[in-house]
Amino acid sequence: MSRFYRSNPSRIVALLTDFGFKDSYVGVMKGVILRYAKSARIIDLCHNVLPQDVVEAAFVLSCSYNYFPEETIFACVVDPGVGSDRRILCMETPKYFFLAPDNGLLSVLEGKEKSRKFYEVTNDEFFLKPVSATFHGRDVFAPVAGHLARGLDPSRLGPVTKRVATIDLDFPIRTPDGTLRGQVIYIDQFGNVITNITETALTGNQIVDRKAAVIVLQGHRIHGIAHTYADLAEGEIGCLMGSSGYLEISANRGSAQGRLQVNRGDDVIVTRAE
Amino acid sequence: MSRFYRSNPSRIVALLTDFGFKDSYVGVMKGVILRYAKSARIIDLCHNVLPQDVVEAAFVLSCSYNYFPEETIFACVVDPGVGSDRRILCMETPKYFFLAPDNGLLSVLEGKEKSRKFYEVTNDEFFLKPVSATFHGRDVFAPVAGHLARGLDPSRLGPVTKRVATIDLDFPIRTPDGTLRGQVIYIDQFGNVITNITETALTGNQIVDRKAAVIVLQGHRIHGIAHTYADLAEGEIGCLMGSSGYLEISANRGSAQGRLQVNRGDDVIVTRAE
Amino acid sequence: MSRFYRSNPSRIVALLTDFGFKDSYVGVMKGVILRYAKSARIIDLCHNVLPQDVVEAAFVLSCSYNYFPEETIFACVVDPGVGSDRRILCMETPKYFFLAPDNGLLSVLEGKEKSRKFYEVTNDEFFLKPVSATFHGRDVFAPVAGHLARGLDPSRLGPVTKRVATIDLDFPIRTPDGTLRGQVIYIDQFGNVITNITETALTGNQIVDRKAAVIVLQGHRIHGIAHTYADLAEGEIGCLMGSSGYLEISANRGSAQGRLQVNRGDDVIVTRAE
Repeated sequence: MSRFYRSNPSRIVALLTDFGFKDSYVGVMKGVILRYAKSARIIDLCHNVLPQDVVEAAFVLSCSYNYFPEETIFACVVDPGVGSDRRILCMETPKYFFLAPDNGLLSVLEGKEKSRKFYEVTNDEFFLKPVSATFHGRDVFAPVAGHLARGLDPSRLGPVTKRVATIDLDFPIRTPDGTLRGQVIYIDQFGNVITNITETALTGNQIVDRKAAVIVLQGHRIHGIAHTYADLAEGEIGCLMGSSGYLEISANRGSAQGRLQVNRGDDVIVTRAE
Repeated sequence: MSRFYRSNPSRIVALLTDFGFKDSYVGVMKGVILRYAKSARIIDLCHNVLPQDVVEAAFVLSCSYNYFPEETIFACVVDPGVGSDRRILCMETPKYFFLAPDNGLLSVLEGKEKSRKFYEVTNDEFFLKPVSATFHGRDVFAPVAGHLARGLDPSRLGPVTKRVATIDLDFPIRTPDGTLRGQVIYIDQFGNVITNITETALTGNQIVDRKAAVIVLQGHRIHGIAHTYADLAEGEIGCLMGSSGYLEISANRGSAQGRLQVNRGDDVIVTRAE
Repeated sequence: MSRFYRSNPSRIVALLTDFGFKDSYVGVMKGVILRYAKSARIIDLCHNVLPQDVVEAAFVLSCSYNYFPEETIFACVVDPGVGSDRRILCMETPKYFFLAPDNGLLSVLEGKEKSRKFYEVTNDEFFLKPVSATFHGRDVFAPVAGHLARGLDPSRLGPVTKRVATIDLDFPIRTPDGTLRGQVIYIDQFGNVITNITETALTGNQIVDRKAAVIVLQGHRIHGIAHTYADLAEGEIGCLMGSSGYLEISANRGSAQGRLQVNRGDDVIVTRAE
């Protein structure tokens, strides 16, 4: 079988799951990966995606993957359909490999990764057997990631496929009265409230003068888009372009979420001027 | 001393503790391991065992260790007796090494590991000195694990011993009226309620027709044992054989524990038919 | 540029942040480090420092760093001033490298590390560009740590500087009536209450007979300083010299913090005798 393995014997495996840290599920996945790829480097990208929340997992992945070295394998196990007949996909791009259930998680990378190829992961010679009905992270994703980390050519995993499930991270829309209406898509541990409004969306809506913009969220009005947390007074709630490239609402040295009591999906309105 | 080190210079060290992630205790243990074994691979098996809960640690270990590569060293630091005269043991099996206090944690592997040898860890030339009275994870377990990771022969750690403390993970019992009575032994982060009832226990009790079985837990009756989460309606509570090989009670896309309010140790009854 | 890299191609990078584990921030930092230092070993020292709490970060670092192998790089990102004009420092000692904002975090090592040299991290050829205003962990600390892990000489990072911000971990004081007055400086996950009172402070205050000492905390009186948790009855609250070298108040198999309801900064009084 060795002719199917490429030269790199120690690719990086980045794990994205909703398994949390209470149990040994993540630890067991790592043990399995190392059985197949003794010198793989394993990185925890994130294990605290909200349980079975494919949209949140997709958002986290889309903001993060591009910072990793070439040939990293992303094993994404947020999988409400485990044990059903949902498929498992391997997506190959010029720089990376992605493993995920066919539940739309990978579809959000479509805009960023033009050249990509999907394989249906069906070749059970690369699985850990017997394959359980409830823990494919251990029995499918980990051993397949291990084989890829050792350099396996992904074409060995199963047939090429073109039909894959899709989800959309919502895009902001321009309303008839000239305002931009987006949504909250993520709230981080610091209580920063991240929206789906990008630099491009602002520019496309002719919101060029950042200081004159007005942002409305849950009845709270914020004037202007700051450059950094330090531009805000201590405890002040403000708006800035976050490190992920999205407009976010933050409190300097505090939690905007705690102050505003917003939730994912809440509307965020941006108007050009008073 | 080098003649006591075997050839493998980069064994895996898997850590199982109740130290959690708030403090730097786990990080410091890793720093110490790397002082003694520069190229050891360190894996977090689990750090969120309930504080000082040796039984839970034993359950987590028994479900997990077998997925790791050969020669892995399991350093298990759930140690309510730290600083007392309790001993520290190294258990050697054909595939693995285990370090743990002599509090019964390792005894649950007895049925699975027939060929095993215990050493009392007493040779303080392998400890980090001065040895504190309260943090043997740092001062004993980490350096000893580091030496083993570098290939130290465990016979160097101290004398062979045969007398070791034992605990039992409870086994289910068959009651006079023909039902099987087990207990809840673990509740995971998803709220899956894991019992001590194995495939073998079901078969031994002639519960062959899984669809006709009735499971009773906290007054809640569940009919039949499903194959996978996806066999349940959304939010439905059901029973299935979990990935660890034990009967578990789960809610599809929800928390069975949250719905049923069960606790570890609660009785679980399985009857063959109505 | 290779002549600026020393020989060691796989130094350890230890991360100390307040980023927590909910988000992918830590994972992304690791991805960036590995882009610059393919074989770096990355260790999580601690990510649950209280948000923006520089004093707590300094305490955790001062108790932990000395257990790591030589040449470890400590990347400390507890940084309330991110995006302002606060500087970033690299401190070089005979054994280690430390990266931190110039907010006093590193100043607490002054007493322990007599020979040290500070560089101002200004050379943006080692940064990840474009540098965001809010996530210097990803854009500055991680790539610089990666370059150091590959062996970069820290003098390449920017000019030597001598003027650095300082904070003090409070020291206990001796009061006119002969008692020693310290403070709670840290409360760990087990509810152990750690004070700023060291062995030296006790000795300096002629508290030689540990059994006769009386410790007062939130109106609760504790008689004597025990040697280890096991010296206490189950559930008993007692005092001992903790593994970090500080006097701590603990409950055997329980949480002293939960029982006493103390907070960081609360006074702790030690008297020599009744």
